[in-house]
Amino acid sequence: MKKRKIVAVTGIRSDYDLMTPVYREIDKHPHLDLELIVTGAHLSEAYGYTVKEIEKDGFKIAERIESLINGDLASSRVKGLAIQLQGMVQTTDRIRPDILLVLGDREESITTALIGSYMNIPVAHVAGGDKVIGNVDDQVRHAVSKLAHIHFTTNKESTERLKKLGEESFRIFNVGNPGLDRIKDVPVLSRKVLSNRLNFEINDNEPLLVVIQHVISTEIEQAYDQMKATMEAINELGYKTIISYPNSDAGGQQMIKAINEYSHKPFIHIQKNIPRLEFINLLRKASCLVGNSSAGILEAPFLKLPVVNIGNRQKGRLHADNVQFVNHDKQEIINAIKKALFDIDYRKQVANCINPYGDGNAAKRIVDILATIPLEKKLLIKEITY
Amino acid sequence: MKKRKIVAVTGIRSDYDLMTPVYREIDKHPHLDLELIVTGAHLSEAYGYTVKEIEKDGFKIAERIESLINGDLASSRVKGLAIQLQGMVQTTDRIRPDILLVLGDREESITTALIGSYMNIPVAHVAGGDKVIGNVDDQVRHAVSKLAHIHFTTNKESTERLKKLGEESFRIFNVGNPGLDRIKDVPVLSRKVLSNRLNFEINDNEPLLVVIQHVISTEIEQAYDQMKATMEAINELGYKTIISYPNSDAGGQQMIKAINEYSHKPFIHIQKNIPRLEFINLLRKASCLVGNSSAGILEAPFLKLPVVNIGNRQKGRLHADNVQFVNHDKQEIINAIKKALFDIDYRKQVANCINPYGDGNAAKRIVDILATIPLEKKLLIKEITY
Amino acid sequence: MKKRKIVAVTGIRSDYDLMTPVYREIDKHPHLDLELIVTGAHLSEAYGYTVKEIEKDGFKIAERIESLINGDLASSRVKGLAIQLQGMVQTTDRIRPDILLVLGDREESITTALIGSYMNIPVAHVAGGDKVIGNVDDQVRHAVSKLAHIHFTTNKESTERLKKLGEESFRIFNVGNPGLDRIKDVPVLSRKVLSNRLNFEINDNEPLLVVIQHVISTEIEQAYDQMKATMEAINELGYKTIISYPNSDAGGQQMIKAINEYSHKPFIHIQKNIPRLEFINLLRKASCLVGNSSAGILEAPFLKLPVVNIGNRQKGRLHADNVQFVNHDKQEIINAIKKALFDIDYRKQVANCINPYGDGNAAKRIVDILATIPLEKKLLIKEITY
Amino acid sequence: MKKRKIVAVTGIRSDYDLMTPVYREIDKHPHLDLELIVTGAHLSEAYGYTVKEIEKDGFKIAERIESLINGDLASSRVKGLAIQLQGMVQTTDRIRPDILLVLGDREESITTALIGSYMNIPVAHVAGGDKVIGNVDDQVRHAVSKLAHIHFTTNKESTERLKKLGEESFRIFNVGNPGLDRIKDVPVLSRKVLSNRLNFEINDNEPLLVVIQHVISTEIEQAYDQMKATMEAINELGYKTIISYPNSDAGGQQMIKAINEYSHKPFIHIQKNIPRLEFINLLRKASCLVGNSSAGILEAPFLKLPVVNIGNRQKGRLHADNVQFVNHDKQEIINAIKKALFDIDYRKQVANCINPYGDGNAAKRIVDILATIPLEKKLLIKEITY
Repeated sequence: MKKRKIVAVTGIRSDYDLMTPVYREIDKHPHLDLELIVTGAHLSEAYGYTVKEIEKDGFKIAERIESLINGDLASSRVKGLAIQLQGMVQTTDRIRPDILLVLGDREESITTALIGSYMNIPVAHVAGGDKVIGNVDDQVRHAVSKLAHIHFTTNKESTERLKKLGEESFRIFNVGNPGLDRIKDVPVLSRKVLSNRLNFEINDNEPLLVVIQHVISTEIEQAYDQMKATMEAINELGYKTIISYPNSDAGGQQMIKAINEYSHKPFIHIQKNIPRLEFINLLRKASCLVGNSSAGILEAPFLKLPVVNIGNRQKGRLHADNVQFVNHDKQEIINAIKKALFDIDYRKQVANCINPYGDGNAAKRIVDILATIPLEKKLLIKEITY
Repeated sequence: MKKRKIVAVTGIRSDYDLMTPVYREIDKHPHLDLELIVTGAHLSEAYGYTVKEIEKDGFKIAERIESLINGDLASSRVKGLAIQLQGMVQTTDRIRPDILLVLGDREESITTALIGSYMNIPVAHVAGGDKVIGNVDDQVRHAVSKLAHIHFTTNKESTERLKKLGEESFRIFNVGNPGLDRIKDVPVLSRKVLSNRLNFEINDNEPLLVVIQHVISTEIEQAYDQMKATMEAINELGYKTIISYPNSDAGGQQMIKAINEYSHKPFIHIQKNIPRLEFINLLRKASCLVGNSSAGILEAPFLKLPVVNIGNRQKGRLHADNVQFVNHDKQEIINAIKKALFDIDYRKQVANCINPYGDGNAAKRIVDILATIPLEKKLLIKEITY
Repeated sequence: MKKRKIVAVTGIRSDYDLMTPVYREIDKHPHLDLELIVTGAHLSEAYGYTVKEIEKDGFKIAERIESLINGDLASSRVKGLAIQLQGMVQTTDRIRPDILLVLGDREESITTALIGSYMNIPVAHVAGGDKVIGNVDDQVRHAVSKLAHIHFTTNKESTERLKKLGEESFRIFNVGNPGLDRIKDVPVLSRKVLSNRLNFEINDNEPLLVVIQHVISTEIEQAYDQMKATMEAINELGYKTIISYPNSDAGGQQMIKAINEYSHKPFIHIQKNIPRLEFINLLRKASCLVGNSSAGILEAPFLKLPVVNIGNRQKGRLHADNVQFVNHDKQEIINAIKKALFDIDYRKQVANCINPYGDGNAAKRIVDILATIPLEKKLLIKEITY
Repeated sequence: MKKRKIVAVTGIRSDYDLMTPVYREIDKHPHLDLELIVTGAHLSEAYGYTVKEIEKDGFKIAERIESLINGDLASSRVKGLAIQLQGMVQTTDRIRPDILLVLGDREESITTALIGSYMNIPVAHVAGGDKVIGNVDDQVRHAVSKLAHIHFTTNKESTERLKKLGEESFRIFNVGNPGLDRIKDVPVLSRKVLSNRLNFEINDNEPLLVVIQHVISTEIEQAYDQMKATMEAINELGYKTIISYPNSDAGGQQMIKAINEYSHKPFIHIQKNIPRLEFINLLRKASCLVGNSSAGILEAPFLKLPVVNIGNRQKGRLHADNVQFVNHDKQEIINAIKKALFDIDYRKQVANCINPYGDGNAAKRIVDILATIPLEKKLLIKEITY
């Protein structure tokens, strides 16, 4: 039996982290072959040159496509998208995969979906149907869903939304969030080891905050002020805090500037990029996650971690009882963190919250479907259901 | 009052023809400025170098973006899309339009929608919500609808479909098909003048067939055979027939090959490209339109012209009673053409058909909305309705 | 011993034909591995989709890079160059060849040279140092020589010119023209077989003309008129004539138009593209080669074939006594062809001409050097000699 | 009289600084119009987003072409070159300049030269004929010279080199370095004002070092170690030192890392980017310029400033008696700086050195030629002189 060639596209460490369990499962499957197209932020020194982690993990890299423009203009991101698309056509034409696989709502997702659509190659899309208002990513995610041929959703709400979008039922599979698969497998680091690796002393007997905040594409101009409000709150609270850089979207440089204004504070520790192993252990040890990272929505409830979500980025998203939503307002942020740290009732509620994003077995489900779904004309010819 | 700058994108004569009434109306409006981005097939000698017609029409051309790859592979079209996107980012960044305007479901529509989405410029999209199964264009059209900010639909059915797709009602305007606006205004040419211009004798007392057939992206391999079946039917019937070349999609070269195998037949006349004036007058004089052109669906009922639609390209599309649908089968095609020419009941039915695509006043409606719709944040931040 | 990986770049049938002997020799060499980057006109249906011949020949194709813009503007060619460059960076980064190999003065040569220079990979360039005034290709060839690290010249004059250009002697090897290697090996076709293959009757007892004419980049506007003059001469002479299409440069479409105006003449036979086997046998049988093809300069003297070279394209180039140079003037062309066919003294002179472009053993020389030249820093760091 | 449209291309602050006097002079000329294409590092936040300075200076910007890849690989630079080329074709096609103008040996110079050559637009190139071994820029500069149509050299040696390269004499004009024009016009800042602007106290009675060091393309791997050696020397000397970031070439990030390891030293002041006004005044006040900036070769002798040039970047370049050449060796660097600061004979020699790069009136000469050189066919058709 001829193996199916799966080409997965990854553009940034965050999506790579979520998809790693799926990649591993494909690699283990006797009837599937995996190759990765590595692009975007992975190839930029400024974002940690994370292709090195992929190499270390041992996956086969089919191509490296540099696509990130060194610019912070509104146009930079979509120009990078065009460059990525131009390069990826060439790779896809060379490899002729049986299935293209991609997650989420970043540039990679729409470039992959366009290539599959025009080149008649089925596109399997992970995490479609989610809803996050206020960001170009939201519209891109829905556009990708209209182009993709196989949908792996992470929750029931998104599954229903895809059906409403006119996607045929036979294309949709609610598998849960593959990111959770990985948390289970991450080895536990001791406090001491973790402190050493981060080069920052973590103690058991004092609060530890973790801050991750990204730009919203419709609020690029406010990027600096938004980050500044968070930093002022952190500064006033004075608890040990570990801050990770925003991702490579336009406006990110402004945020980094705001962060670095506090780089001299002894209780603040800034990391360009926190490797997965350290990151999960950090979440296990943290008292509260602050910012607007999707980890707060998707992974924190699995770990029963309180989250203070700031601003519009995750607004309207399906979430568990571990999240407080606040505005970009110093005092609101302070109050919410204090509640997360000290309000006993609230902390009990978080400890008992139910995770709507699955059971940590998504990868296995995805790979079974990739291996068996009939690659016939019906899969390629999409028909809106109304 | 500052004028609104409308940048419209056109990639091929067919979309340009449909949109010309809108462009004219914008040009006349006291509060709107129009600039065109001309790209794709317009700049190719092989497709008639139709940018010359645009120049002659006097519209302001903001940029010419060569994007068409001289290739017929599955990859050629999406590579051209990438090149177009890369160029259009630059132009948009330079001009900073208030609104981007585009029609349909070709490469131009998705590149324009992506640029508007990422650069926070409202995109007005004409003819969204239509449904044509079996073609990548169908999926692209729906993806564009998920990205665009203002929808000008051409019929009630499409309007309803956009609402089901989760588009907010305030964004959707059923204006009718602007292509019909133009038919009304096209001057009538006498039989003799038309014959001279086409360099082919047309008589009033004998049947006249017009053939326009394009490739379906999921059936590229069959392009030659499909065209061949049509040509065999035309050859067997032996009526005067005018054939126009397919558009620039992959597979088109194969179709042209099949067409040219009959170039020596005296009753067959091949034209690379029929200018609008001649084309409308040809439809007025024709006994039947054969192939899979959207003109058969959209414009023929306005002219009460029988249509034999071959294959899947227009399948499932809202249409009037003037269309017979047949397969790529010589005998079926022959039978349907004979019915269209000689079946008195059928011809009566066509003469009385009702056009579902509006009243020929779309341009005025579109331009009124472009001039007055509030360009506020609400327009840019899309929220799916479920 | 680790094999050296040679990546050769080919963009059009004409350069592929010249380089095939070298490719074969590399393929046979125990210490060299060959991969081809196929780009440009090779991938265009309009130019014969000649990648198929490469596949048939069995060379390993590392990548297909579509780069040809479907346009005839002054900008089309350099835009295609940019697209090719963008794609080739990706391929080179993936393969990391030990040496890049390219011939001539087309887009491929400068893109390859730039990539090698910036990515620190030695570039071996074939046919540098030649001089052909009046064409952008001439300037590009010299620019490539300033970038390339190893020069394989085809004649003594070019070798001396490279030295004057400041190229270090250790980089320059006069190996002769590899195109001649191939002529020796091309099997002889009988008149009858050749006639059948070309679908055109060739007789031994009547003159046979072969016409190949290309555009000059500085005379694009005159392309139609230039071809027209040639065609009028051919038409007036009325001898059997086989005409091959021009290559894919801007203006070529205009030439094709002029050619096709004579397509109905029974003594004229038009071929989009003549495969190598048939082409060499055609030259063996032809009475005279007409136009401005480099074959007249490079290969015809090897075959003792009279050449009427029209216009500026090969002007100033080192040539043997088989070439008459004429202007784009119908009468001059007619006179020169008549002399080539009937002037006994002239025909004797041609029969005795000496070929300045080597002995048909270039491939072997090139490959020996590719296999043994030390790939050290000295090779990469070029130092102009003055 | 129709004005000549000059389109100048600038990609980084360093070339912009040198060319500003020329731009000003063109702007003032009654028969010339100037438009700038701004690309490369100018549009990157990481390199100071220097397009803002251009806007402030009031030049007309025809286009902004983002081209810098956010990457540090060997491929990043040439990929950016391809992107720049693809964008610049579009701009040039739109504007159709009478002359393209560019300086130096960076990506902009070769992209501009290629566009002019293929699109038949004369290219005026500033600073051709220079010789700097060990860098891809050197080969690129010579390649540009083979493509450009008008040469403005900055010194006699380069003029002679261009003639040897086969460039026709009528194309070559020795005008001197336009960068010197500007030094004359830069207003003098007091020590106090300068200290304030740099946010770093400068004193008259203690040594002041200025360090600018860039990557050599053939020594990317050594970038970190090379910068480290310099920084160790600076650290050991302990004098007040102002350090400017390297430019955007591959490897620059590594250098920045080495620099930042000393950011906490009180006597070291790091600036991402020093505006021209402050930079010239800094050179006026400095005791010694250290690194490998071309300012040490070109401008320092005009200011009688001692220079310690480290490594290969400026090796072999025409220079005055103010430069000491040393290796990337801490002790060598220390010794040379000490000699520059304290050796009375040496300091006298520097004070009397003669500048081989002209008299500071280059801009006027360049502009006179741009305004009057006949734009005829002879200018476009280059003929190598041997």
